[in-house]
Amino acid sequence: MYKVDLNCDMGESFGNYTLGYDEEIMRYISSANIACGFHAGDPATMNKTVKLALEYRVSIGAHPGFPDLQGFGRRNMSISPQETYEIVLYQVGALNAFIKAQGGYLHHVKPHGALYNMAAVNEKLATAIAEAVYHFDPQLLLYGLADSELIKAGQKIGLATANEVFADRTYQPDGILTPRSQLNALIANTDDAISQVVKMVKEQKVTSVAGNDISIKADTICIHGDGANALTFAQKIHEVFANKSIFINSEQIAR
Amino acid sequence: MYKVDLNCDMGESFGNYTLGYDEEIMRYISSANIACGFHAGDPATMNKTVKLALEYRVSIGAHPGFPDLQGFGRRNMSISPQETYEIVLYQVGALNAFIKAQGGYLHHVKPHGALYNMAAVNEKLATAIAEAVYHFDPQLLLYGLADSELIKAGQKIGLATANEVFADRTYQPDGILTPRSQLNALIANTDDAISQVVKMVKEQKVTSVAGNDISIKADTICIHGDGANALTFAQKIHEVFANKSIFINSEQIAR
Amino acid sequence: MYKVDLNCDMGESFGNYTLGYDEEIMRYISSANIACGFHAGDPATMNKTVKLALEYRVSIGAHPGFPDLQGFGRRNMSISPQETYEIVLYQVGALNAFIKAQGGYLHHVKPHGALYNMAAVNEKLATAIAEAVYHFDPQLLLYGLADSELIKAGQKIGLATANEVFADRTYQPDGILTPRSQLNALIANTDDAISQVVKMVKEQKVTSVAGNDISIKADTICIHGDGANALTFAQKIHEVFANKSIFINSEQIAR
Amino acid sequence: MYKVDLNCDMGESFGNYTLGYDEEIMRYISSANIACGFHAGDPATMNKTVKLALEYRVSIGAHPGFPDLQGFGRRNMSISPQETYEIVLYQVGALNAFIKAQGGYLHHVKPHGALYNMAAVNEKLATAIAEAVYHFDPQLLLYGLADSELIKAGQKIGLATANEVFADRTYQPDGILTPRSQLNALIANTDDAISQVVKMVKEQKVTSVAGNDISIKADTICIHGDGANALTFAQKIHEVFANKSIFINSEQIAR
Repeated sequence: MYKVDLNCDMGESFGNYTLGYDEEIMRYISSANIACGFHAGDPATMNKTVKLALEYRVSIGAHPGFPDLQGFGRRNMSISPQETYEIVLYQVGALNAFIKAQGGYLHHVKPHGALYNMAAVNEKLATAIAEAVYHFDPQLLLYGLADSELIKAGQKIGLATANEVFADRTYQPDGILTPRSQLNALIANTDDAISQVVKMVKEQKVTSVAGNDISIKADTICIHGDGANALTFAQKIHEVFANKSIFINSEQIAR
Repeated sequence: MYKVDLNCDMGESFGNYTLGYDEEIMRYISSANIACGFHAGDPATMNKTVKLALEYRVSIGAHPGFPDLQGFGRRNMSISPQETYEIVLYQVGALNAFIKAQGGYLHHVKPHGALYNMAAVNEKLATAIAEAVYHFDPQLLLYGLADSELIKAGQKIGLATANEVFADRTYQPDGILTPRSQLNALIANTDDAISQVVKMVKEQKVTSVAGNDISIKADTICIHGDGANALTFAQKIHEVFANKSIFINSEQIAR
Repeated sequence: MYKVDLNCDMGESFGNYTLGYDEEIMRYISSANIACGFHAGDPATMNKTVKLALEYRVSIGAHPGFPDLQGFGRRNMSISPQETYEIVLYQVGALNAFIKAQGGYLHHVKPHGALYNMAAVNEKLATAIAEAVYHFDPQLLLYGLADSELIKAGQKIGLATANEVFADRTYQPDGILTPRSQLNALIANTDDAISQVVKMVKEQKVTSVAGNDISIKADTICIHGDGANALTFAQKIHEVFANKSIFINSEQIAR
Repeated sequence: MYKVDLNCDMGESFGNYTLGYDEEIMRYISSANIACGFHAGDPATMNKTVKLALEYRVSIGAHPGFPDLQGFGRRNMSISPQETYEIVLYQVGALNAFIKAQGGYLHHVKPHGALYNMAAVNEKLATAIAEAVYHFDPQLLLYGLADSELIKAGQKIGLATANEVFADRTYQPDGILTPRSQLNALIANTDDAISQVVKMVKEQKVTSVAGNDISIKADTICIHGDGANALTFAQKIHEVFANKSIFINSEQIAR
């Protein structure tokens, strides 16, 4: 028997704009990263998405991003560690209010987009994020790219961490993600993506683009919530996991 | 011996823009209403202002407003009760994160500007605000215009409330504030303003523009933090109160 | 032979969010009202939508709204005439830059949402909008609700105006639109909506909800660009107009 | 007799926030770079600042920046050339509307803050800005850091350009500005700053921090509009220039 957390970014609608298939996908995942109003999401969307997650007993994470709605938080910004600390704390608190008001609790924090990527390689930003999370609540889990600076910073400050892997991304021979700028960055075939994930969970290994096997720690798997086949993929991975005795569960992550 | 709470709006700077005399005035007041990033304030300013308030042992309140930075939250918006609930909850949670991270606690919530004024007369908006505050934490105090719909909504839901009066505003014969559109809305003379406040605190009465005395409940007095003579006024009221045995204290407000 | 302008709101996407069927509908209309970045739209969307309109030789209008992206410009704001003048001028200029850069010209201005509705009944706001348009370019057309304060303000200052009617909205016995809060505000049936429009164009009359015929001036007809059957409706009205010798054309509006 | 343009960033107030000494400094300069609402400024401020510039017959430039009000446009953003083109075009058009409405004309464009710095060294961003300016109006002047990629891109596309130098910044032996991160980046002493400027104008040379003289092209000098001694500096440079027969004038820049 295996256990793994399946997470998905949620609550990325804004005002009059709808994005993603939150309600449909919520039933297939064990944890939801909810946008906090900076790169996506707004108070109404946050309120609704928290409600949905609680209904499906999905663990709730805050998904803070850069203050860049137009760029969806995907554009790097030369933000200082202090500013990083402040925008993360702000967003975590804002989301937590909706959870608290509905009688739930915050489970984890996972930075979004460019903030996630920068924190994966920049120790200072990683530390600022870890501090914000720890100062808000030392019991929180910190989600980050597997084996990244963010995971290290979280461990250093005393947070439980979750190494995140991606179902539909390929890996380089040295274990890093293939940059999106390269043609083979994404696994287009659903079955291939699911096979990769099953191997990650069962063997803690992934086959790189060069063909060699690399050790990888897969505490949590990220699936995408938008795009044409998001729902199909969620359903399929859920089904395959059931057949392979892999339990989708957020609570096994060591605290 | 008398006790009264002296509150002031704080943390209204934004990014590169500085507003008010927060540090200088903090020493003269007993509670600070800190802007939460919608009508004013930003994560950096909130972090700094919370720190300042904790240093001076001033009780901290959230000061949520409309999402209208350009209008400083002073323009009425036709916002629904549900939207009101959500923007208040969001902002209260965001501010609370900074307080929590610094080891303090949130003391009260006071809506800002147009939201404050609309909630004073609109029962539905008042109820939405009271619910947001109560759902976040039923131990919080709700500050509102003395005897307004907001105070009533707070009491109805079970919150402790603080009736707010204004040092430098005149009152109509029926007890309502003279609208700012009228020439005699403001008390320009500092000594007159302070005399009015002393009478409010000691006698629970105020003399209207028509000359008659009106009963008024003054749990908390609002002084302004910006404008040329904000600091002078704060110093003077502090001094007069000391001489009159009026203790400036936020803790006497009945919970 | 009859001529009428068919207009549609366009360019309402924002950043990562897509709204409407701009490309599909553009071929059926004669003028496009393009959002200017306040209630919807962004520089990238504006650039792209202007390009699309020029390709289809559709007349381009600026569609300025309130600075309220979250509320999609549909929430009334207590904005002064001076502020109204300024936000309209700003947005008209911003859109015009994209048109100028692509070698086109600005044809008209039509306020959006709450600004449109407020300007229909508030003479001061209407005048402020008309002044902004006139000061930018006295040759521009001003689109407004048929026979509204906005049309009157435009005529008074010397602008050519276009009385706008709605295909899918019902009318009261006195000629005003049935408020959206009422159940019979919308005409759900496509054929009924098109019949109403044909009558408006051919007879300059509309049948009210009470059954009486009212005179109406229909210079331009607004169709909606989002919603499930927006495209179907656009195709159908285009087809019916062709059969009835009603030419869809923006240039017949008297300047 | 010498001529040089003296420019200053203006219109950087926002909503309730006031920044700078626009009115006082306007009388001492020959061209004003007016913020366009992204990093600073708003429609009301733009309208007012344009009026002020026209009153003092100061040449008006658009001062577009990153969409980052909180960071005052000073934080680098990983924005694409296409996005750069679009945000510049949008802002230039918006400012131009206020100038057009008041009967003036736009004289130049100067990017702000991080956009200015990035365009000084990044050929693709520089080209995108130059194209936006050229497409809007090929008669416009483009202001940029002396001898930078932005100046080159402007010249390449066929724009007249103005090489900008700074009164209060020091230069490295190879002619580039000393980065602000270094202690000797700024010239604190007003007389020293003015001497440097006079030498730049009269001899087209500047003495580097290492003591050697470097050739520099000084078409326009930037002075700062905020800070404690902004006004004093403006007055003094105006006075010294008068004594040295240096005429402050924006019209000598070769088109």
